[in-house]
Amino acid sequence: MTSPDPDTGLLAPGWTGSPAAAATADGAYLQALLDAEAALTRAQAALGLAPPEAATAVTEAADAGRFDVRSLAGRARGGGNPVIPLVADLTEAVGETYGPYIHRGATSQDILDTATMLVAARTLGLLLADLDRVQRALARLAAEHRDTAMPGRTLTQHAVPTTFGLKAAGWRALVLDARDRVAVVRDSLPVQLGGAAGTLAAFTVYGAEDTQALTAAFAAELGLRAPLLPWHTLRTPIADLAGCLAFTAGALGKIAADVLVLGRTEIAEVAEGGGGGSSAMPHKANPVRSTLIAAAARRAPQLAATLYSSLAAEDERPAGAWHAEWEPLRDLLRLVGGAARDAAELTEGLRVHADTMREHLDLTHGLIVSERLSAELAPVLGRARAKALLTELAKRTYAEGGSLGELLSQEPELKDVDLDEPTDPARYTGSAGALTDRALERP
Amino acid sequence: MTSPDPDTGLLAPGWTGSPAAAATADGAYLQALLDAEAALTRAQAALGLAPPEAATAVTEAADAGRFDVRSLAGRARGGGNPVIPLVADLTEAVGETYGPYIHRGATSQDILDTATMLVAARTLGLLLADLDRVQRALARLAAEHRDTAMPGRTLTQHAVPTTFGLKAAGWRALVLDARDRVAVVRDSLPVQLGGAAGTLAAFTVYGAEDTQALTAAFAAELGLRAPLLPWHTLRTPIADLAGCLAFTAGALGKIAADVLVLGRTEIAEVAEGGGGGSSAMPHKANPVRSTLIAAAARRAPQLAATLYSSLAAEDERPAGAWHAEWEPLRDLLRLVGGAARDAAELTEGLRVHADTMREHLDLTHGLIVSERLSAELAPVLGRARAKALLTELAKRTYAEGGSLGELLSQEPELKDVDLDEPTDPARYTGSAGALTDRALERP
Amino acid sequence: MTSPDPDTGLLAPGWTGSPAAAATADGAYLQALLDAEAALTRAQAALGLAPPEAATAVTEAADAGRFDVRSLAGRARGGGNPVIPLVADLTEAVGETYGPYIHRGATSQDILDTATMLVAARTLGLLLADLDRVQRALARLAAEHRDTAMPGRTLTQHAVPTTFGLKAAGWRALVLDARDRVAVVRDSLPVQLGGAAGTLAAFTVYGAEDTQALTAAFAAELGLRAPLLPWHTLRTPIADLAGCLAFTAGALGKIAADVLVLGRTEIAEVAEGGGGGSSAMPHKANPVRSTLIAAAARRAPQLAATLYSSLAAEDERPAGAWHAEWEPLRDLLRLVGGAARDAAELTEGLRVHADTMREHLDLTHGLIVSERLSAELAPVLGRARAKALLTELAKRTYAEGGSLGELLSQEPELKDVDLDEPTDPARYTGSAGALTDRALERP
Amino acid sequence: MTSPDPDTGLLAPGWTGSPAAAATADGAYLQALLDAEAALTRAQAALGLAPPEAATAVTEAADAGRFDVRSLAGRARGGGNPVIPLVADLTEAVGETYGPYIHRGATSQDILDTATMLVAARTLGLLLADLDRVQRALARLAAEHRDTAMPGRTLTQHAVPTTFGLKAAGWRALVLDARDRVAVVRDSLPVQLGGAAGTLAAFTVYGAEDTQALTAAFAAELGLRAPLLPWHTLRTPIADLAGCLAFTAGALGKIAADVLVLGRTEIAEVAEGGGGGSSAMPHKANPVRSTLIAAAARRAPQLAATLYSSLAAEDERPAGAWHAEWEPLRDLLRLVGGAARDAAELTEGLRVHADTMREHLDLTHGLIVSERLSAELAPVLGRARAKALLTELAKRTYAEGGSLGELLSQEPELKDVDLDEPTDPARYTGSAGALTDRALERP
Repeated sequence: MTSPDPDTGLLAPGWTGSPAAAATADGAYLQALLDAEAALTRAQAALGLAPPEAATAVTEAADAGRFDVRSLAGRARGGGNPVIPLVADLTEAVGETYGPYIHRGATSQDILDTATMLVAARTLGLLLADLDRVQRALARLAAEHRDTAMPGRTLTQHAVPTTFGLKAAGWRALVLDARDRVAVVRDSLPVQLGGAAGTLAAFTVYGAEDTQALTAAFAAELGLRAPLLPWHTLRTPIADLAGCLAFTAGALGKIAADVLVLGRTEIAEVAEGGGGGSSAMPHKANPVRSTLIAAAARRAPQLAATLYSSLAAEDERPAGAWHAEWEPLRDLLRLVGGAARDAAELTEGLRVHADTMREHLDLTHGLIVSERLSAELAPVLGRARAKALLTELAKRTYAEGGSLGELLSQEPELKDVDLDEPTDPARYTGSAGALTDRALERP
Repeated sequence: MTSPDPDTGLLAPGWTGSPAAAATADGAYLQALLDAEAALTRAQAALGLAPPEAATAVTEAADAGRFDVRSLAGRARGGGNPVIPLVADLTEAVGETYGPYIHRGATSQDILDTATMLVAARTLGLLLADLDRVQRALARLAAEHRDTAMPGRTLTQHAVPTTFGLKAAGWRALVLDARDRVAVVRDSLPVQLGGAAGTLAAFTVYGAEDTQALTAAFAAELGLRAPLLPWHTLRTPIADLAGCLAFTAGALGKIAADVLVLGRTEIAEVAEGGGGGSSAMPHKANPVRSTLIAAAARRAPQLAATLYSSLAAEDERPAGAWHAEWEPLRDLLRLVGGAARDAAELTEGLRVHADTMREHLDLTHGLIVSERLSAELAPVLGRARAKALLTELAKRTYAEGGSLGELLSQEPELKDVDLDEPTDPARYTGSAGALTDRALERP
Repeated sequence: MTSPDPDTGLLAPGWTGSPAAAATADGAYLQALLDAEAALTRAQAALGLAPPEAATAVTEAADAGRFDVRSLAGRARGGGNPVIPLVADLTEAVGETYGPYIHRGATSQDILDTATMLVAARTLGLLLADLDRVQRALARLAAEHRDTAMPGRTLTQHAVPTTFGLKAAGWRALVLDARDRVAVVRDSLPVQLGGAAGTLAAFTVYGAEDTQALTAAFAAELGLRAPLLPWHTLRTPIADLAGCLAFTAGALGKIAADVLVLGRTEIAEVAEGGGGGSSAMPHKANPVRSTLIAAAARRAPQLAATLYSSLAAEDERPAGAWHAEWEPLRDLLRLVGGAARDAAELTEGLRVHADTMREHLDLTHGLIVSERLSAELAPVLGRARAKALLTELAKRTYAEGGSLGELLSQEPELKDVDLDEPTDPARYTGSAGALTDRALERP
Repeated sequence: MTSPDPDTGLLAPGWTGSPAAAATADGAYLQALLDAEAALTRAQAALGLAPPEAATAVTEAADAGRFDVRSLAGRARGGGNPVIPLVADLTEAVGETYGPYIHRGATSQDILDTATMLVAARTLGLLLADLDRVQRALARLAAEHRDTAMPGRTLTQHAVPTTFGLKAAGWRALVLDARDRVAVVRDSLPVQLGGAAGTLAAFTVYGAEDTQALTAAFAAELGLRAPLLPWHTLRTPIADLAGCLAFTAGALGKIAADVLVLGRTEIAEVAEGGGGGSSAMPHKANPVRSTLIAAAARRAPQLAATLYSSLAAEDERPAGAWHAEWEPLRDLLRLVGGAARDAAELTEGLRVHADTMREHLDLTHGLIVSERLSAELAPVLGRARAKALLTELAKRTYAEGGSLGELLSQEPELKDVDLDEPTDPARYTGSAGALTDRALERP
């Protein structure tokens, strides 16, 4: 079997071409692996465990462009990970004099885990930037539509009115929750350094008296945290990434779910700024951004489940649980990064049709305010009579086509009651405005 | 079809009879639902929106023992949730005068979500207590076996030595990570209060001028947080529970995975304090606690995935995503609570066979320290010669049955080299002791 | 901790009270465990390995009503499964003379797996009955609405017309696919008989010369299949159950997803026969059946994933993978059984509003047939001109409010073209009728 | 953001370079998309709906090598799928005369789904070939080791003896189950043809009088099945693929799980033929093939869950559920294809150490046959006395270091009993031989 064509994202419109795609490509992983090797040599040099020239030589050689990623991928099969062939190639590139200082004392997992953390940190940074675009766009929408009344919908049916401002403020609150969780995780990502079985023993043989100082130096070189313990089989960082990414996918998925409903042909209260075309129907403007976000939200939880499963890893390095993390974590980073890009475009371009929202408040013939009328008429008519009257009139609205307000105004018992406000859906939005204001104060 | 026998945990040895089982039983949920209703009436009374007598009457009536949970379960089918029939029964129990103050302004989801948070908070409290037992037992084991050397194993093979102290310290670090995540979530759990569509509109009709104050009073009654916004479809609390529980299951699963390996008949470095019997083989002592923890760890990630999926919930209340949360969240609470109980018993009773560990360090004929010897002999013999010699002798150890140390001592080139220390596996544990000490400083 | 209240389905309106609930309750499992024990003694008696009186005695004693399921559940903790205490209680119930013939030669897994297959077979039978109700209701709907035109919707937008008949026929096709998969699995479910480690060794010691005959007799007693090999860690039956149940959940979930969309307040093309009420809004008729089916469809895939994961089970009996199957399999059986009940009620009671469907075909101002017009006008006007004209008129329909048909009829170029048929959405349903007819021929 | 490096499998030693990798690469998908387009034009030509020259022209142009896959991937973002830009490029490649016959009447999903089925059918063919290698290797191992006794292990502990032959025969039975399920699915994979919303309406406008014939011709061109209905949202083929692939991953995962246990340093009853090296420890021979298979088995169930979830797809084409299938299905095909390759190498090269197995039968001091002795001594000594004696001696074996057989032979009560056979673990393998023989008869 000849070598296959590389993947370029043909099946992945949700993340192809996104910042996260570039930050998680094989080339980016390769560079991160090289960065980790170089940083380890530099850290050793800083502690006097390697000559400064070795650090310089390795750092100069550690350029992904100089390595053949496809060859490395192929050779990774033998030992089951790409670090083994990479160390060989890097050693050859550096040459005999300083080659021995490459990977000295380390194990493959030290390098691959550290590289993964680098890739994750870089990708989360890009993700946070896009989440910030999203939250700003949502803040603008929420403020602009603070008082735009629309039907509140529960179990697919109109319930009572709400506002688009509150809806957008809610979306933003979820995005801020996602941002906060992602930021905490990004700032906690550690280097990995343990040696063959997590005791750092080889480093001590090579002269490290204080392995904690070595770990700290390694972390400082890479801008990552120094962990309290090697975490070869203490996979907190991976699980934390799984959690914050699944959360973010779901948070963006909530926005997409709402836009898909509100943009349906019959509802049309919102529309994506630039709908996607169809190969068969020229008139269609498909909600493509929402669709791709929704697809990501469907996939992320199961990818996270695989990562959580890998917490239960036996021994000092497990036979399978570790290897099962690599692709799912990258997939999550990409999917969520891509979804955030799409969410930025979606929310920045969203078109909101306030008039249509207002019209829809009348679709239930005024019954959308029946909850309020029950409460307001009870003191006037007595609870039982109020309930009986509303039940009777509710039936007539659908049968006769009139609105509940009109029918009520014809009731002699109510001739002295001002029904204008209580029957106006747009004036039954409760604390929506206050909630929106409060939510927007959150930075 | 007559009503089925109730479930009592026949298929659930992992959580039956545990604190979490009691805290999550139907009866506990029923009480929490009633607690939520009573707290809401009290909160309204506190703000002058209901007479104090109503608060008293509802609080007195809100005793799960007075309600027929099986009947409620059956009637929940109609509207799709148990709050609808419960409000009817509670209203009847309270009577005509104060009955109208029950559930006033609220929606089913306000009550069910709040009750779920109560159940979760109570169960997480029990979970934290068991996690504390686990961490203390592990701290003791780590301290006691700080210098107990054993084989470090990677990809199922002996790699280099480690210590049981470091292993136990690592387990504890994971448990502390779990504890920290659980504690943060427990302290963040909010009441739910939004009314029909999250605007709190009905409360305003019933006179609440400041719905924020009402939410705060409701939260204060229950010892939960007051949320910034109603979260009917902003499911951060559910997702956070999913994350911390999946994490905890995995953390405990790591311990179980190691105990299962180390307790294998051939390895026998540890044993459960009280192994379980077999129906067919009287001599067997099965690692039952570890087995049940491992089973929980296999299930939790997928349950969490279902909960993360429910973040993407359309509208002001979704048709399915919300309902899909109820049982999986309870299952997670139970499974993880049960696993923590088993982990406490497991770690408190674990028998550690340090002698067996020491013996196993010799199973590879001394090759377990080959990493060290490579490093130590290189300066003496030159890198190439050292490597060639070790490779040749490694083959002979297995062929001839001797140890690497013995063969090395016969090499004339090495007659002046002190080989005692470098060939002693128990003295090649690197920073294991220092790492253990440091890890145990974490409170 | 005192024993908790039993679960009665308070959180499970989707399956409480369903045939599947009764068939999978703890009591049903207990009876199945007893059925398995009794059948094993009878099978041994049939082969002369036990006295006939023992068979009679065990069979008489094997009545779930005589055992304390809660006590058994509690005692299951010790050995990690409920068979160990059950054998003790059953032996005591049978007495000294014939007690020794209980469980003779068997292992706990033989009994628990066999009981699980019995429960599964019984529940799948009930499930098939409900799936048959569903398919018959759908066949009726498809036939009745063979020519009821409605908008075809893709990516939430109107695409081209379709018929409700084709939609219902498609639903039915999925249900038949589910039925076929479930029926195959039900007919394949095997007894388990392997003894302590799958060699049936103890049976041979007790005199069985032909253990294959024993397995066959055991299977015959229970109406299950005799497997080719003991399958303690060859979990094909469990995985097959997982697959057919996840499939069925998804098939029913497709129907629910469509009903939820089509029943939205703004769309209202269908309605559930008996919508569920709301605790806060008396006018609401919620699509509760669809909601509960949708919730089941959200959960089933992850439960199936846990079961598929248990295929990778080490040794002759795994420490965790087996135990992780029990509750998820029961959950799947219940969820899907409950969803089938709801689907039967849903499809039998579904109200279809053909007039509304027809009205919606005009919502896009005739653009729903633009695909057809492109094709039909190209030969008349040339491809380029046809496309340009349609594009221009499409814009005008929305701007001016007219329909594409009206605008086209004003075009001088088209004055001789009969536009009535090509612009009538109800006549652009392609092969919908023929496809429906063909699909309904499938038995 | 510049275009990222393509993925080449750097993180995927489990499938990189495998037949499945080539068959599922972006290039392979691109070719399948082109194959689908060309087949559709040919099918139309065969029915007189397009000139034969168009069929020839499209077929000639449909060569993946002539298209820029990276550009297509990038442009897929706009409409959310790669077919839209591909039709544009293919039309340009074919030219003005026959270009209009490309994609005529079809929708993007027709082409993408059909291409997916082509890719799946091709990959399943390769998978079946590797599964056949595996089953043949296992048949050989089972036959060769029909009578190789070894410890049967349950819950990690020695239970009673079994044979390696039975174990290998069991592995093979699972692989045959997988093969059968994969083969059924491969032979059922259908083309997709429905047009914009599944009614095939546009084809009728373009002159197709019998759309069933068109579908049949399309299927015949591609060697796929003609479906009864368009299956845009009737996703049986996808779910069936998910099921058979998750099954296969688990079946292979069972083998890997056992090899990983049996190959542990302390057990060493089997070894991979060519173990993988380590970057830090020259002496290690890691079970890399098993590790990578185990990793695949951990991931597959969750990927399948995502696919099963997509069954619940709303409308005539869903906004997200369809898009969520593409990558997970490819991932599954690759992972399982790669695992089958590794399983072939693993089973063909597996080294079995029968001597070590035999030695381990004595590790429990003869208690591994205590089940047998209980049964055999009861008639001689009475049940109670037999049990008491064995319990007492069992304790002494561990305390005194002797074997159960030796201690028994010193008992005066048993001086006339032949203990040789009943205390020989190698002669307590029950029906293992017969079961193995029977299992090997399965073709």
